[in-house]
Amino acid sequence: MDQTKNITTPRYTQIPTFMRLPYTDHRTTDFVRPDPEIDIGLIGIPFDGGVTNRPGARAGPRAVRDLSSFTRIYNNKVNPYNNITVRDLGDVVTSEPFNLATALKDISAKLSSILTNTGVRPVVCGGDHCVTLPVLRAMRKLHPLALIHFDAHCDTGGHYLGSQWHHGTPFRHAIQEKLIDPKKTIQIGIRGSTNNPNLWSFSYDHGATVITMDEFESWERPCETVIDKIHEVVGDSNAYISFDVDCLDPVYAPGTGTPEIGGLTTREALQMLRGINGLNIVGGDVVEVSPPFDTRDQITALTGATVMYEILCLVAAGIQWT
Amino acid sequence: MDQTKNITTPRYTQIPTFMRLPYTDHRTTDFVRPDPEIDIGLIGIPFDGGVTNRPGARAGPRAVRDLSSFTRIYNNKVNPYNNITVRDLGDVVTSEPFNLATALKDISAKLSSILTNTGVRPVVCGGDHCVTLPVLRAMRKLHPLALIHFDAHCDTGGHYLGSQWHHGTPFRHAIQEKLIDPKKTIQIGIRGSTNNPNLWSFSYDHGATVITMDEFESWERPCETVIDKIHEVVGDSNAYISFDVDCLDPVYAPGTGTPEIGGLTTREALQMLRGINGLNIVGGDVVEVSPPFDTRDQITALTGATVMYEILCLVAAGIQWT
Amino acid sequence: MDQTKNITTPRYTQIPTFMRLPYTDHRTTDFVRPDPEIDIGLIGIPFDGGVTNRPGARAGPRAVRDLSSFTRIYNNKVNPYNNITVRDLGDVVTSEPFNLATALKDISAKLSSILTNTGVRPVVCGGDHCVTLPVLRAMRKLHPLALIHFDAHCDTGGHYLGSQWHHGTPFRHAIQEKLIDPKKTIQIGIRGSTNNPNLWSFSYDHGATVITMDEFESWERPCETVIDKIHEVVGDSNAYISFDVDCLDPVYAPGTGTPEIGGLTTREALQMLRGINGLNIVGGDVVEVSPPFDTRDQITALTGATVMYEILCLVAAGIQWT
Amino acid sequence: MDQTKNITTPRYTQIPTFMRLPYTDHRTTDFVRPDPEIDIGLIGIPFDGGVTNRPGARAGPRAVRDLSSFTRIYNNKVNPYNNITVRDLGDVVTSEPFNLATALKDISAKLSSILTNTGVRPVVCGGDHCVTLPVLRAMRKLHPLALIHFDAHCDTGGHYLGSQWHHGTPFRHAIQEKLIDPKKTIQIGIRGSTNNPNLWSFSYDHGATVITMDEFESWERPCETVIDKIHEVVGDSNAYISFDVDCLDPVYAPGTGTPEIGGLTTREALQMLRGINGLNIVGGDVVEVSPPFDTRDQITALTGATVMYEILCLVAAGIQWT
Amino acid sequence: MDQTKNITTPRYTQIPTFMRLPYTDHRTTDFVRPDPEIDIGLIGIPFDGGVTNRPGARAGPRAVRDLSSFTRIYNNKVNPYNNITVRDLGDVVTSEPFNLATALKDISAKLSSILTNTGVRPVVCGGDHCVTLPVLRAMRKLHPLALIHFDAHCDTGGHYLGSQWHHGTPFRHAIQEKLIDPKKTIQIGIRGSTNNPNLWSFSYDHGATVITMDEFESWERPCETVIDKIHEVVGDSNAYISFDVDCLDPVYAPGTGTPEIGGLTTREALQMLRGINGLNIVGGDVVEVSPPFDTRDQITALTGATVMYEILCLVAAGIQWT
Amino acid sequence: MDQTKNITTPRYTQIPTFMRLPYTDHRTTDFVRPDPEIDIGLIGIPFDGGVTNRPGARAGPRAVRDLSSFTRIYNNKVNPYNNITVRDLGDVVTSEPFNLATALKDISAKLSSILTNTGVRPVVCGGDHCVTLPVLRAMRKLHPLALIHFDAHCDTGGHYLGSQWHHGTPFRHAIQEKLIDPKKTIQIGIRGSTNNPNLWSFSYDHGATVITMDEFESWERPCETVIDKIHEVVGDSNAYISFDVDCLDPVYAPGTGTPEIGGLTTREALQMLRGINGLNIVGGDVVEVSPPFDTRDQITALTGATVMYEILCLVAAGIQWT
Repeated sequence: MDQTKNITTPRYTQIPTFMRLPYTDHRTTDFVRPDPEIDIGLIGIPFDGGVTNRPGARAGPRAVRDLSSFTRIYNNKVNPYNNITVRDLGDVVTSEPFNLATALKDISAKLSSILTNTGVRPVVCGGDHCVTLPVLRAMRKLHPLALIHFDAHCDTGGHYLGSQWHHGTPFRHAIQEKLIDPKKTIQIGIRGSTNNPNLWSFSYDHGATVITMDEFESWERPCETVIDKIHEVVGDSNAYISFDVDCLDPVYAPGTGTPEIGGLTTREALQMLRGINGLNIVGGDVVEVSPPFDTRDQITALTGATVMYEILCLVAAGIQWT
Repeated sequence: MDQTKNITTPRYTQIPTFMRLPYTDHRTTDFVRPDPEIDIGLIGIPFDGGVTNRPGARAGPRAVRDLSSFTRIYNNKVNPYNNITVRDLGDVVTSEPFNLATALKDISAKLSSILTNTGVRPVVCGGDHCVTLPVLRAMRKLHPLALIHFDAHCDTGGHYLGSQWHHGTPFRHAIQEKLIDPKKTIQIGIRGSTNNPNLWSFSYDHGATVITMDEFESWERPCETVIDKIHEVVGDSNAYISFDVDCLDPVYAPGTGTPEIGGLTTREALQMLRGINGLNIVGGDVVEVSPPFDTRDQITALTGATVMYEILCLVAAGIQWT
Repeated sequence: MDQTKNITTPRYTQIPTFMRLPYTDHRTTDFVRPDPEIDIGLIGIPFDGGVTNRPGARAGPRAVRDLSSFTRIYNNKVNPYNNITVRDLGDVVTSEPFNLATALKDISAKLSSILTNTGVRPVVCGGDHCVTLPVLRAMRKLHPLALIHFDAHCDTGGHYLGSQWHHGTPFRHAIQEKLIDPKKTIQIGIRGSTNNPNLWSFSYDHGATVITMDEFESWERPCETVIDKIHEVVGDSNAYISFDVDCLDPVYAPGTGTPEIGGLTTREALQMLRGINGLNIVGGDVVEVSPPFDTRDQITALTGATVMYEILCLVAAGIQWT
Repeated sequence: MDQTKNITTPRYTQIPTFMRLPYTDHRTTDFVRPDPEIDIGLIGIPFDGGVTNRPGARAGPRAVRDLSSFTRIYNNKVNPYNNITVRDLGDVVTSEPFNLATALKDISAKLSSILTNTGVRPVVCGGDHCVTLPVLRAMRKLHPLALIHFDAHCDTGGHYLGSQWHHGTPFRHAIQEKLIDPKKTIQIGIRGSTNNPNLWSFSYDHGATVITMDEFESWERPCETVIDKIHEVVGDSNAYISFDVDCLDPVYAPGTGTPEIGGLTTREALQMLRGINGLNIVGGDVVEVSPPFDTRDQITALTGATVMYEILCLVAAGIQWT
Repeated sequence: MDQTKNITTPRYTQIPTFMRLPYTDHRTTDFVRPDPEIDIGLIGIPFDGGVTNRPGARAGPRAVRDLSSFTRIYNNKVNPYNNITVRDLGDVVTSEPFNLATALKDISAKLSSILTNTGVRPVVCGGDHCVTLPVLRAMRKLHPLALIHFDAHCDTGGHYLGSQWHHGTPFRHAIQEKLIDPKKTIQIGIRGSTNNPNLWSFSYDHGATVITMDEFESWERPCETVIDKIHEVVGDSNAYISFDVDCLDPVYAPGTGTPEIGGLTTREALQMLRGINGLNIVGGDVVEVSPPFDTRDQITALTGATVMYEILCLVAAGIQWT
Repeated sequence: MDQTKNITTPRYTQIPTFMRLPYTDHRTTDFVRPDPEIDIGLIGIPFDGGVTNRPGARAGPRAVRDLSSFTRIYNNKVNPYNNITVRDLGDVVTSEPFNLATALKDISAKLSSILTNTGVRPVVCGGDHCVTLPVLRAMRKLHPLALIHFDAHCDTGGHYLGSQWHHGTPFRHAIQEKLIDPKKTIQIGIRGSTNNPNLWSFSYDHGATVITMDEFESWERPCETVIDKIHEVVGDSNAYISFDVDCLDPVYAPGTGTPEIGGLTTREALQMLRGINGLNIVGGDVVEVSPPFDTRDQITALTGATVMYEILCLVAAGIQWT
């Protein structure tokens, strides 16, 4: 069956898988050697145990799946599903959600098993930003990765409320665990007041490129400038995209845990994502979609789904061109 | 795999099928002889082309699927999944949604094919009330059925706005097509102002038992009285339950197309549904859940899902006891 | 043209007048002798300057007009429009909304002019409960009226926040101005905590019949009991019905200024209103619908509109039987 | 009476006609020769039978009428009502809403009768984009018109779901029926993924000017560029403006049927609309406002109403200058 | 200053403390001997780390504080503040929210310190139902307490998702830790489907009185029956009231984590609470208010606040009568 | 105690004062000489009696307090609380809310007493724009002030609806009473249709600098241009900032009384506010936040709170640098 068959039916019909693609449950016994071989796996991680403020991102994968029916096949006349097998692999669910530290280990193990067994490239939907850490860990063979990170916050913070794990720290750990190369890391959209004047010094100290909204706005053509910088920082390394929807202005992503006014527009985000086509993108995620705070028309889930589709297109492009 | 496996995971996880049961796509070529044989098929019909007022019931199956994760396995210590195979068969979608008359024929044909080929008993989620007609038509071998009908309206109306088909007429057609036996038909919850003083005279003239809210309220113990009447009317005939959520007061089902204040409470509805356990219920539906008008907490979808589960339990009980 | 012509069209069409009846602007010069003579005038008073808590009732008439399209012609097979001319007379708007005391005088004067010139019986939609006072004042020839008052509060309070006028005092003034007869006054649904243990003593001291929710619930068949009491208190006097939607439990009327949990159901309210058919009802109002606090499906406006239609039926019944 | 009298009253008062202008029911027998003669007719078409995704645009005219009370008389010190008679003509309602093909014919006939009889220039509020086709058909004496079309989609698509009529096809038909001149057609705001790489090829093949968001964003001063192009394409032809609110980013128009992220801002839309003052605009519409998906503050209806007022100003300007 | 001074000001003014009472921060160094001595402390515990489904109860105390301004001084002419010193003590916040087990210990310790130091009787606002356990632990001198428990679930469940601590287990622990006497425990409102047919067997096995909704509805006068049973079970023991808002039907408490349709009405809840006046109530809580799922008018927070006030009245009555 | 202690706790905890700062009730007897001396007082004025359209701003201070917990200590590494004592002084509440004219006098008197007694610099949260007048009056020693005014409307209008006081007139009075110097007044963001072609002529005639959105958009780098103009107009005078949230596009501030599409973005607003750091800002306000019309995520309250924090930073900067 053509994997895009459901996509051409009315958008409110059938079971809502990501992008209305076929569902291959990663928990089944024969998943070790799926037939056909899967190139890209769309994976939900419904976990928000690392949230410090508004919760609800646990419901993100369901809402993004639902709204992802708004995406279609061709993006600017290019078909990311052409010769590429993409599947919704279902959700990776921790068996111990009440303990953040063990939950993250558990998710890491489950993801490792999926990615190692099958070689699929992951495009993930969170969950809070914690979930990026196990995804990065599970992409074992590609360490250290370059990182293209859209966010209002650098998420390289430290210990808070008795824990070194929470949704403000994944990239500190990723750097410390050598999952990503800080010198090949670029963080875009940073803003907001802080409780510590040097909250993001870890990023700076380790050589990451940090682009605050103040800088962004000072440039004549900010999106082109950022695209150039991404190319410069990442080069031809294997790169991962982590897209926290709070990089966007809250009007575009009201349903999120720690909104900061004065963010990117979706036009800017799309322009930057499309501007890096050609880079070697090997995986990515969209995180921090919190449906309980979304609007009636579910703009955040729609945005999350559309960005997830754009990342899928970037990952597919890398494979298609190979 | 145990068909209830997913039900014990956290409710916001995994792909939202009805009741978190396994998904067996009725459109696949090998559906003619599914293995295992399916006893009860949960089917969505996302169609609202017959609505005369507020639209949106096309999105009903997705919302009810999502909220059906709130239901669990045992209902009053009885397990409807015990020795019964229940599957989410996906949605039956018309290929011609822009023409109500042909759409209904198309849905009838598709449902007939499913039910005839497999012998499954249907528990359906609409869509507007139009969709009950094709379901009844597709239950060919059991005609004429008894009908237990919860609704604010008798839905035995006539021609309106150039069409004899719309969501106020399914039971007129069902009686005329001899799908149901009007003398074994009971309609509960009827109320509201009308444009025609004899709008529901077709029901009365054909011998249906009509219970208006005024009558209902005049009784000392109304639920028990209705349960007795249902037993009396239906007897041991094969019976179908059609549950239009607008039988309920709009506070319990705000997300619906033609709300009428002064309806049933969910406690009354549950009491009546549970009170007819033991009747020979061979199928049923929940219709008119319109998510765009639902509340933030999705009470209508939750109610629709819970009632669908109760109907499933009644249908399963009939099979289990056989 | 048949005045009910619009009522038979789809409910979301045409300009939203009350009950989709013809619009006769009371501000036009030839309104003094409208042709045909109008029996009942539906009037909006979009004023909420007397609110002490949540505002928004100024938008009540527009929302109730919109949702009144849900009402139809026949109520239990009786047509209130039969031989009765009913019109939407538009809104009575104060020219001085920023000063409560002068605003109420202004509204009184404008309403007096309408009612005196034409002899129409008023069915009014507020606005906050302040607006009942000018309506009562304008029904000059019928003083003192009997009063059937549904409310969580007796609204016979005193001076508050520098003003003897506010939405907690209209009936104190109506009694003092001899517009209503306190001995022929019955107040139903009273409840809630207070800042003064004797807040409603004015009602008791003047001989009004006050039915608290505690009493109501203590009765075996509370609605029948209240209907009997209303008959007893009002007898064959000319009676006015004032229906503050906060008499209802907030689940039925969330869009209101001073909700109190534990109120009447709409089933109880409808039962009581229908149970007094036959009394000499000469006018009435529905007040305190505050759309900014209403739900997505506009349950409060729907309830307000349906109750307004029921009151219209009662007023029409009095005229039809004459 | 001054037609702008109601506009100076508080905005939440009186019956909500478009722009609070007088109401002249087009269905009355004496409408053939209205007195005074009407220059511009504001018309609602509450029909959404052509929607392929989220429904609800049938409620657009009521919501836009309500929010149009936010518009006032002068736009940049110019009064569009000066020496121009503008009326709300009410809604054009199909008698056969359940059959898309016949519904469109019916609407065409009714509109033709209005426009032919009276010579009024139409400013229309939909309904879904289907309704533009009958409006264009009814402007018979002016064919072929130039078209200025704001939309996320070209709406020159083909057969879908068994029908050549739906809200993605009006301009294919308008070109085929020679209602508009494709060479004098400009389409602005186009974007989004598709199921067919050449979905909008009909536009390109027939010589329409298509401006995608990607192009738009690539220009230094995009609004000025578009204004120049519009002047170039349209010249001094009689031109019609069709404004689908989904041309806007969904944050400005969440209440619509097929939102696409990354759209125009209202500032851009207003700048372009104001920049074409002086063109010979003879009619226009605002379509696809779907209130069930709007926000609490009704931003989509407010935007729809404001854009409708701007189009009214453009049409009035043409007449005033004549 | 009179502690009720703020209560008589308009309800939308000033800092929202519980019931608009004075704020005495329990974290200040001189709290050990507050002056005046505090009889009853109103305490928020903004923690929802034990939620298994919809989160958000962490925001409960803020929302309930805000809506508690709707309560006033006198309840049925009795003043609970008369000769009783009541204060808002602020929130007890865990320093380790990311680890459920340690969080509960931390909250226990902080509460113990407050209650032991001051002897205040606690009226608590959660937070998820987990928070009741540390409250019970902190009432050390009164163990074992009788328990009056309103809930849809017995909350005596076992290990789930890797943890013996979660919001479905507090009363299992309370019984095991001998904080409450199971034979003096009554649980009211129990209902809903389960994954284990004997989910609540711990309650039954330990001799608790469990009143399901099915039983409740089978009684002629259910509230009076329950009141009698409570008196019987509790007698003159020191009793604690734990009120999970999900005991209510979701229409009265939509903003909660695990809604079950078919619950109590607020009228029934208030009748039962008022009916046990005279028992020796020494503390209580309202839990599971989850504001992100609440309606626009905040009915759940209003209900939560009103119930908290009723519990405060019961606790005050015990002290006043002493 | 460190005044910023609460700011480092989780944002949903504790009593919501402005910015989670300590609360010093201005109504207490010892407020005349608070210890420590207060440099900046954050004050709520919950009054919306001057609103001409949508009400609800009376609830602004509570909502802004709640969302102000999202602000933290450092703004671009600068700490406005360093060596500056800032307190939430509570609300200034009029004793006569039902009479606009006397209410404004009453608020003036109460504010004068606070500011005169203590010398605190005010940062105020409204309430409707009326409340700016009493604030300006109370800053007696600094008259005439320069004014930096962000708004969609100049608010220098005249008599309307029987009153010279309403939320469209505060700056006419402020100029007439010589509280501000019109030549040192700049008004930014002006737009929208009007009922009078010269509605804002008072501003122009008195020499104020008025920047309409049309002008703003015509500039190459509009924010820099405005910053330059502000410096030019204000120079080194003592300046007051009045920020009406309707200066913003309604997508950023949906919860307001008189939204006008086509407004500023929050990025532009923040850029301009930060660009005037160094001016001598002695006070300011944020007004017209109307929570009943806000979105689920409370974007307007979040924006209001963040802007209030930015103004606080500007006022603190002036003091720190002194």
